[in-house]
Amino acid sequence: MTVAIIGVGLIGGSLAKDLHANGFADRIIGVDNNKANAQKALELGLVEAVLPLNNAIAEADLIVLTIPVGAIIPVLHSVLDMINGTQVVTDMGSTKQAIIKSVAKHPKRQRYVPSHPMAGTENSGPEAAISNLYAKRVAIICDKDQSAADALKMVEKMYKSLFMQLIYMNGLEHDVHTAYVSHISHISSFLLANTVLEKEKSTATIFNLASGGFESTVRLAKSSPRMWADVFSQNTANVAEVLQTYIDLLTDFKSHMLAGDYEYLYEQMEKANAIRKILG
Amino acid sequence: MTVAIIGVGLIGGSLAKDLHANGFADRIIGVDNNKANAQKALELGLVEAVLPLNNAIAEADLIVLTIPVGAIIPVLHSVLDMINGTQVVTDMGSTKQAIIKSVAKHPKRQRYVPSHPMAGTENSGPEAAISNLYAKRVAIICDKDQSAADALKMVEKMYKSLFMQLIYMNGLEHDVHTAYVSHISHISSFLLANTVLEKEKSTATIFNLASGGFESTVRLAKSSPRMWADVFSQNTANVAEVLQTYIDLLTDFKSHMLAGDYEYLYEQMEKANAIRKILG
Repeated sequence: MTVAIIGVGLIGGSLAKDLHANGFADRIIGVDNNKANAQKALELGLVEAVLPLNNAIAEADLIVLTIPVGAIIPVLHSVLDMINGTQVVTDMGSTKQAIIKSVAKHPKRQRYVPSHPMAGTENSGPEAAISNLYAKRVAIICDKDQSAADALKMVEKMYKSLFMQLIYMNGLEHDVHTAYVSHISHISSFLLANTVLEKEKSTATIFNLASGGFESTVRLAKSSPRMWADVFSQNTANVAEVLQTYIDLLTDFKSHMLAGDYEYLYEQMEKANAIRKILG
Repeated sequence: MTVAIIGVGLIGGSLAKDLHANGFADRIIGVDNNKANAQKALELGLVEAVLPLNNAIAEADLIVLTIPVGAIIPVLHSVLDMINGTQVVTDMGSTKQAIIKSVAKHPKRQRYVPSHPMAGTENSGPEAAISNLYAKRVAIICDKDQSAADALKMVEKMYKSLFMQLIYMNGLEHDVHTAYVSHISHISSFLLANTVLEKEKSTATIFNLASGGFESTVRLAKSSPRMWADVFSQNTANVAEVLQTYIDLLTDFKSHMLAGDYEYLYEQMEKANAIRKILG
């Protein structure tokens, strides 16, 4: 099978590595607006060829969009316009509803399978691509009844070849749940970084004290601003809602701390410990 | 040399492992109010003996307090009362100023070296003790001019035997800098956990989506509530100040998101990316 990967950064590049290694793809064609990234992906052997979008699609059985969610909407339209009735398209964007809505009336909507593998690192670009990024993680497939059975099957097969666990929900549910768990985590981390950069003027001190927990909590603050600005623009209402809950809990914690009610703080932190039972 | 470790949990137990392994200590005596922990530390071979506080001190050259900072103040007093003029005491608490102040007028103040190794995990108890917890991390020694030269030297030697890098500051500076970098990270993580637990009612969904960044950001929320309630009670003003900055930045981010100003969000996140240059 020939796979076209549109966007050969961390997500697309890591996908290419695994689909080569596990034999799912015989040939992988990369497409990237960023010439340097495209060249790098070739050099690293992530893809067999780099082609313009239309040439890549002409050759591919499966087209995977691994570009920021803001870019997915126009590109997905073009791709659906170009494919025939047997080719299959999926995307790996971190939001789903706006993308799904944008192609709801496209005559080839059934060839598209909206998906979202819950995997990534804080790094970007083809050099950041790693093997087994996806293994043992969850991939979400949305609105599966809107996709043709053979298209759905091909995308499921791809994710299973990566040793991913498949779960299904509709696009609206997806955006709510990812806001509540994943998107808020990124905001928490980005603004923790800015807080520490604002308050602690000595970068040497930040470095020296980082092993006291800051380092892991702030890891996501290294993530791509382009990717996340796009996500927040497509999931504003859900993200703003959970962000307000976070602000309320922080404000409440601060009030009780200033009031000297440390038993209340203890209770709040003990409640937070429940996360260990869920995550292990 | 005989070392008495008061509190054989994660911090004390990990210390015991390394001081045995590197030959700094010939004999380590554990003291713990929690009988089960004391017994476990003996079983695990972390300590050669478990004794009551006064018996342990009678035998020890160096006494290390590795109990929560709320317990350190009374215990440090008792220990200083009991030691002779050649024994040395240090503590590993995450706050320093309140502890230092509490013994400022003690006649044996010079035998005490306030310190804080910037190391830990989200786990607690003697079973959580690990080797090399301290290696390549920073240990802070505070107000070194207030300690006798030989006492300072012994504590420095202990930290160097753990391959720690020593830095020096006064107790006030310590509490400001740790609030700005380490303590705020814990609040960020504890309340992220509570936010997600409040908004996302399905624990299965939390588990499934956790690999999208939540898992690492929330790691510190598994930390000991007792330890951290004590820290916040002893560093309230500094922690409240940096917490307010964090709340302000989150509120500002939310306002711009709701106003559709995604370029502003991009700029804030790009600013946060600077943390990569500092932490690597």
